[in-house]
Amino acid sequence: MSLYFEDLVVGTLAGLGSHTFTKAEIIDFAQKFDPQRFHLSEEGAKGSLFGALCASGWHTSAVWLRLVIDYRMRQGDFMRFRGERPARYGPSPGFEKIRWTKPVFVGDTIRFSSQVHEKRDTKSRPEVGLLLSLNEGHNQNGDLVFSVISKMFVERRTPLGVT
Amino acid sequence: MSLYFEDLVVGTLAGLGSHTFTKAEIIDFAQKFDPQRFHLSEEGAKGSLFGALCASGWHTSAVWLRLVIDYRMRQGDFMRFRGERPARYGPSPGFEKIRWTKPVFVGDTIRFSSQVHEKRDTKSRPEVGLLLSLNEGHNQNGDLVFSVISKMFVERRTPLGVT
Repeated sequence: MSLYFEDLVVGTLAGLGSHTFTKAEIIDFAQKFDPQRFHLSEEGAKGSLFGALCASGWHTSAVWLRLVIDYRMRQGDFMRFRGERPARYGPSPGFEKIRWTKPVFVGDTIRFSSQVHEKRDTKSRPEVGLLLSLNEGHNQNGDLVFSVISKMFVERRTPLGVT
Repeated sequence: MSLYFEDLVVGTLAGLGSHTFTKAEIIDFAQKFDPQRFHLSEEGAKGSLFGALCASGWHTSAVWLRLVIDYRMRQGDFMRFRGERPARYGPSPGFEKIRWTKPVFVGDTIRFSSQVHEKRDTKSRPEVGLLLSLNEGHNQNGDLVFSVISKMFVERRTPLGVT
């Protein structure tokens, strides 16, 4: 979202779009960052924990990240089109509860979403608020494969305490 | 580590080695997964939140992951050399508290470590135990730039309850 903190509504669900994981990109990510046999080749994955070639959980996370950034940029473009400066996002004080609840296999299409989970005032930083988002990815069968709670400082229209 | 659950000692600290982040790899990761201006070019980073080109936090995480996997493989090779089958690791029930406490700028050398943080018996899965590790990255000035708590199921030599 590139919305200002005041305009975020708890419960709002944003569809981020979907991504189909190809064999080539799964192997490419694994060779760079997660060279375990079930991420590197179909052959190596046989008889492994997952039984077939599947994406590194960190690859799934990185694809989710890309879709969030793209979403925020589209939202920002729309706000600029309406003559408004998009809100500044970041930095993040951290992420919580990363879960990879099912494997992402070659050819799986994962649909990602982001929901406004909670808003917290930050008295020590009156110019921003803390946004907690619940992010999820579901495969083509509707199974949850990925979730993470992100925390992000989001610019306010009006600093806290100023009326 | 490729050690069995019984052999892991709380407090043991493993040095995972270090990595120097180049401009090219920072930009490459950002173009794929995190195309925000402070990750894409020196010029775009000026006047941004961080003031200079810096790595995506997810890039730092992915580099840590690679060093963990390499460490575990070296440990596994050593165990095989001694005639022992390395313990099976995984899957992970999730990661907690990812923090990027300082930016990682071009040319920074980050030294990563992993400490055995806690061991939990898992009665529903007697063949494994749950390992919690505290993973950290420090830059060349000694500043903490990254931390995450990983959870991993680790094979036991002897299933829980068998004596």
